[in-house]
Amino acid sequence: MIIHMKKGFTPEQEQVVLDRIKARGFDYHIIHGATGIDVIGVLGDLSSVEESYFAEVSGVDKVVRISKSYKMVSREFSPRTHVVKIGESAIGEEEPVIMAGPCSIESREQLESISKYVHELTIPILRGGAYKPRTSPYSFQGMGLEGLKMLAEIRDRYGVKIVTEATGLHRHVTEEGKIEDKNVLENVIDYTDIIQVGTRNMKSYGFLQELGLLTKAKKTPILLKRGDASTLKDFLLAAEYIVSNGNPNVILCLRGIRTFEDAKFQRATADIGAIAVLKRESNLPVIFDPSHSTGYRDSVYPMSMAAIAAGADGLIIETHNDPSNALCDGEQSVTKEQLSMILEGTRKIRKVLPRPDYSSK
Amino acid sequence: MIIHMKKGFTPEQEQVVLDRIKARGFDYHIIHGATGIDVIGVLGDLSSVEESYFAEVSGVDKVVRISKSYKMVSREFSPRTHVVKIGESAIGEEEPVIMAGPCSIESREQLESISKYVHELTIPILRGGAYKPRTSPYSFQGMGLEGLKMLAEIRDRYGVKIVTEATGLHRHVTEEGKIEDKNVLENVIDYTDIIQVGTRNMKSYGFLQELGLLTKAKKTPILLKRGDASTLKDFLLAAEYIVSNGNPNVILCLRGIRTFEDAKFQRATADIGAIAVLKRESNLPVIFDPSHSTGYRDSVYPMSMAAIAAGADGLIIETHNDPSNALCDGEQSVTKEQLSMILEGTRKIRKVLPRPDYSSK
Amino acid sequence: MIIHMKKGFTPEQEQVVLDRIKARGFDYHIIHGATGIDVIGVLGDLSSVEESYFAEVSGVDKVVRISKSYKMVSREFSPRTHVVKIGESAIGEEEPVIMAGPCSIESREQLESISKYVHELTIPILRGGAYKPRTSPYSFQGMGLEGLKMLAEIRDRYGVKIVTEATGLHRHVTEEGKIEDKNVLENVIDYTDIIQVGTRNMKSYGFLQELGLLTKAKKTPILLKRGDASTLKDFLLAAEYIVSNGNPNVILCLRGIRTFEDAKFQRATADIGAIAVLKRESNLPVIFDPSHSTGYRDSVYPMSMAAIAAGADGLIIETHNDPSNALCDGEQSVTKEQLSMILEGTRKIRKVLPRPDYSSK
Amino acid sequence: MIIHMKKGFTPEQEQVVLDRIKARGFDYHIIHGATGIDVIGVLGDLSSVEESYFAEVSGVDKVVRISKSYKMVSREFSPRTHVVKIGESAIGEEEPVIMAGPCSIESREQLESISKYVHELTIPILRGGAYKPRTSPYSFQGMGLEGLKMLAEIRDRYGVKIVTEATGLHRHVTEEGKIEDKNVLENVIDYTDIIQVGTRNMKSYGFLQELGLLTKAKKTPILLKRGDASTLKDFLLAAEYIVSNGNPNVILCLRGIRTFEDAKFQRATADIGAIAVLKRESNLPVIFDPSHSTGYRDSVYPMSMAAIAAGADGLIIETHNDPSNALCDGEQSVTKEQLSMILEGTRKIRKVLPRPDYSSK
Repeated sequence: MIIHMKKGFTPEQEQVVLDRIKARGFDYHIIHGATGIDVIGVLGDLSSVEESYFAEVSGVDKVVRISKSYKMVSREFSPRTHVVKIGESAIGEEEPVIMAGPCSIESREQLESISKYVHELTIPILRGGAYKPRTSPYSFQGMGLEGLKMLAEIRDRYGVKIVTEATGLHRHVTEEGKIEDKNVLENVIDYTDIIQVGTRNMKSYGFLQELGLLTKAKKTPILLKRGDASTLKDFLLAAEYIVSNGNPNVILCLRGIRTFEDAKFQRATADIGAIAVLKRESNLPVIFDPSHSTGYRDSVYPMSMAAIAAGADGLIIETHNDPSNALCDGEQSVTKEQLSMILEGTRKIRKVLPRPDYSSK
Repeated sequence: MIIHMKKGFTPEQEQVVLDRIKARGFDYHIIHGATGIDVIGVLGDLSSVEESYFAEVSGVDKVVRISKSYKMVSREFSPRTHVVKIGESAIGEEEPVIMAGPCSIESREQLESISKYVHELTIPILRGGAYKPRTSPYSFQGMGLEGLKMLAEIRDRYGVKIVTEATGLHRHVTEEGKIEDKNVLENVIDYTDIIQVGTRNMKSYGFLQELGLLTKAKKTPILLKRGDASTLKDFLLAAEYIVSNGNPNVILCLRGIRTFEDAKFQRATADIGAIAVLKRESNLPVIFDPSHSTGYRDSVYPMSMAAIAAGADGLIIETHNDPSNALCDGEQSVTKEQLSMILEGTRKIRKVLPRPDYSSK
Repeated sequence: MIIHMKKGFTPEQEQVVLDRIKARGFDYHIIHGATGIDVIGVLGDLSSVEESYFAEVSGVDKVVRISKSYKMVSREFSPRTHVVKIGESAIGEEEPVIMAGPCSIESREQLESISKYVHELTIPILRGGAYKPRTSPYSFQGMGLEGLKMLAEIRDRYGVKIVTEATGLHRHVTEEGKIEDKNVLENVIDYTDIIQVGTRNMKSYGFLQELGLLTKAKKTPILLKRGDASTLKDFLLAAEYIVSNGNPNVILCLRGIRTFEDAKFQRATADIGAIAVLKRESNLPVIFDPSHSTGYRDSVYPMSMAAIAAGADGLIIETHNDPSNALCDGEQSVTKEQLSMILEGTRKIRKVLPRPDYSSK
Repeated sequence: MIIHMKKGFTPEQEQVVLDRIKARGFDYHIIHGATGIDVIGVLGDLSSVEESYFAEVSGVDKVVRISKSYKMVSREFSPRTHVVKIGESAIGEEEPVIMAGPCSIESREQLESISKYVHELTIPILRGGAYKPRTSPYSFQGMGLEGLKMLAEIRDRYGVKIVTEATGLHRHVTEEGKIEDKNVLENVIDYTDIIQVGTRNMKSYGFLQELGLLTKAKKTPILLKRGDASTLKDFLLAAEYIVSNGNPNVILCLRGIRTFEDAKFQRATADIGAIAVLKRESNLPVIFDPSHSTGYRDSVYPMSMAAIAAGADGLIIETHNDPSNALCDGEQSVTKEQLSMILEGTRKIRKVLPRPDYSSK
């Protein structure tokens, strides 16, 4: 339930509302509006509460019941897009934010080589996997803590921000068979600016809850990737798990979905349509992953253009200095030149085609 | 197999090649290049023929074996995009071509009202269904021949071209229970400028073959829609049925595909990624249907922008003067104002973002 | 709307009901019950008609409005399963009916060899494709009329019944390039006992309508295969097209559906669950195609057992005397020995596990 | 790589083989054959090792390289089905093993009521969820540790074995907002006989690895459910994660998969075909979940029969004393009477239709 205060409401009036919320055992969340008007979100099972219980308090303008199963992440809850700030970047504002980097960190040389050109292209956020979820137990599982430390060095050197995946709450076993002391999420929290939750963990609800609880204080931004066969409703509810447990800074990240399509042409189907749906339904920012959208390098540029034209708030792109020798995802990694073209195209589109204003709908 | 002649080849040299083709019982197709160089496509099962059989003829530059199961519609067969001309429009050139109109023709008033604003917006091609394939035998099946005649009147009045669907080779039963004299395809051929083959008939191979044979002489353009669960390979082979039976003027039309996605948000998944795949794989022009891409009006604008940004050669859009009272597809039909915004956006994108050059790959 | 007459109703009473139906412009369909009680199905848009309009006629027991979009094929319309009789076989009764034969007729020798063992195994219905819908225009399209004539000879010799596919309303072009005089459906009607409508034509609504009209008089049984990405509702509505146009003898045939599944293991997903759904929802008999259910020979036996255990009314199986050299579908064709095992297993299961009684639900 | 010893091989000969394995840094796994012949599985990346390196040792019969990406769970690794024993039950032998119980434990009364009739029906294994993965953070998340303790009491009283889900490595928050001391997996390990890994965690590879490591000593049986959009290859690799980390007692559990199918008829598509595929490809036992196969009670009986007829080694069924008031999955829970019918049908089928012998293929 959403309570909109009137223009010029007093702190005392708002306190009456908050007391009524607490009296019934509910929790709440206050959004301070740019125009000085507060909006109060009431959380919990409100089926037994009448709107009038809050509407009759003086200073209250109107009371709206949220009809969706996802509450705090919905447009009904907050018509304005929630902007996630990371350093100088603001994800959810007019300007699209680009993140780029290798699928996985393979060595210091590789990371430095890629970081250098990512930085030269003025891309503000570097991606790179230190923990890699792999379909086979016999595949390379990432450099682990060592990789995280390399990422942190790069951050210090170039002033970029970093995004890396937390694959779960387990302890990582290194290539040499050593088990790391802390669990993966704890390590990632220690080192990263944005915590990525991967496709395979989008429905690991216990993990999402723990993630919300552990980042409640610092509110570290979370980049939540859609499961490759998840409905959009389930995706929004996964985000709700994190937000309702205390961390509002969730960035929704779309990618290709699993369909009947022939893998020879497209390993997944780029669900560009979902960008428009999520922008209408949710107050969270929405970015797109053109690399995992189809799985082929030649499609990364057109899918990037399409995503921005459809209204995405940013892109996260896999790039590699030597794609044909990449340890993972080489076929979908773009070169520096291709990355540069994407950046340029992105800016051109947004310049002539302002992002649709979903908040007013 | 593709035979490229040398610059300055003589007609006599070419005749030797053609004689060799005929001597082995094959058919052929000559493409006259803009630079004066001919390319000859040899059709049939060439597994037993060596390249040298043609390469040794003087005047021949090189001989290329086509590796794909789709031959004449592939980029290997003809690196240049085949341009389909309809009146002033050229589908497959730099400028995207827009087609718009109602899902089905409901009455003279409705068709006139819509045609008027479609014409005012300078849209060159009017769509409108006279024969409607319906999931239920009890639903409105279209106005039939009467609808075709109305379309023809509009064409004469406004100078627009028309595209309408041929639902098959059967005879149409009118709402009054009368059976039309000619079959549906024959009627459509008599009246339209572009024959649409709908999603449900993309795998009616006998129909596609008959369509190729019946339009071999006039080469009426065919707008072939992808089946909603068809792979791209099967889509290209369906086009090959028409082209190999004598009509090269096929326009590939993409739309939403059938996935696990929740129908409440998206009735289908807009396969924007397929635009890039088809442009790489095929020499045929590729247009996109943003209306049947997701089934919801609010997504038509963003999907139109995404399709053009991804490189589509045009759009076919459902529009209605009174969407909430439309006899079919009202929920995905845009108003005149929305159609106008789409046109404007389309032009802006193509201006800053030239269509990628697929022929040179 | 369904009108159930009382026990002992008179012809005069029934005539009053029929007159009332005609007076409002509706059509009807009378089912003569085994107990001597008639049930009258009223067809058309009955939204403006009150139940009382018929219920008040003396001799009427009760009036039931059908809630489903599919009417005549629903269990609501007729709680008893409609039994389709072909020679000695009755599809829809307790005993499962088996049909078997090659994917396509390749030569007289091949057909004779297979027919011989199919007959020896006392299988009453022989399948064999004379017209083959092929994904590629360059693939073998079937022996056409010549193949139909061979089938007819086999029928005469062995007293089996035959089922063969009508691929549409087009004319067949033979391997030698000759165009047959009659269209494919007309030829098939001339020769076969059961007309198969294939997966690719399940949504060719004009063809289904024409099929209903052309077989209205003779009521030739139609084996309607589910489209590989068709919902069950659409499948039932496709059957409704044929039944509502005059031919009640439709046999629903399930097969594998198109999913994300890896083709290496299963080319399609055997939708065994749909057997139970269709038996509950529809009064038509339901058979299963274990060959096209997964596309691999090793799965034909287990899928046959599963289908019968789930309540299927029969099976249609591809068999070949020399599977590894078959012109089509060799990988899913079973040998004589495997076919014999399937027959035996089928009988054992039905003996210990009577078919569930769906009519009483 | 698999090394088959000769009949009558000596321990010394075997030791030479093991020494050679260790000399190259590989791990191994010995399967003692019923005929006294050992088979040794060598683990790791063996691409650089020639077969002759082992074949030349005296006492070695033959050396087979495993071609599949899943090694230890494949039929190539061990042609005989690995039997998982739980109390008196042996999953993977001729007799199908049935597990049944409620979706979630709701109260002591509910659990006792259901356990009583499950026990009366001589079902040896009771299922019941104490930790429930829920799509919405606002839904009932299970009774947690309290539920586990109730399950343990029932086990002691009736002598049944129990299977319950470990939803991950997080700590459970109770309905009262208290956080449990141990993480979920640790608690489940303390109390259950079989640990269930649910659909949503099948790709939580870190969790699977930790699970293998934590149960390496006790080798607690793991019931691994297939992800609802997982390929069979990925399913087998998930099992490989557990087995290769030290616990061979994995039971594969199939259920419905996510397809385009209309949820009104089937919430998922029962992948009965996958039973046959997994039995051919893997040496692990395969059971089927008829409740989550389609999501509707009326389909549980036919899907149970189909699964057993296709060769499943057992079933896990949701049952409830009062399905219409169940806190979760009420629509797919069967009553005592229906459960009894399923048991009876299961026995009848297996009696007339012996399980196919996959080991000899």
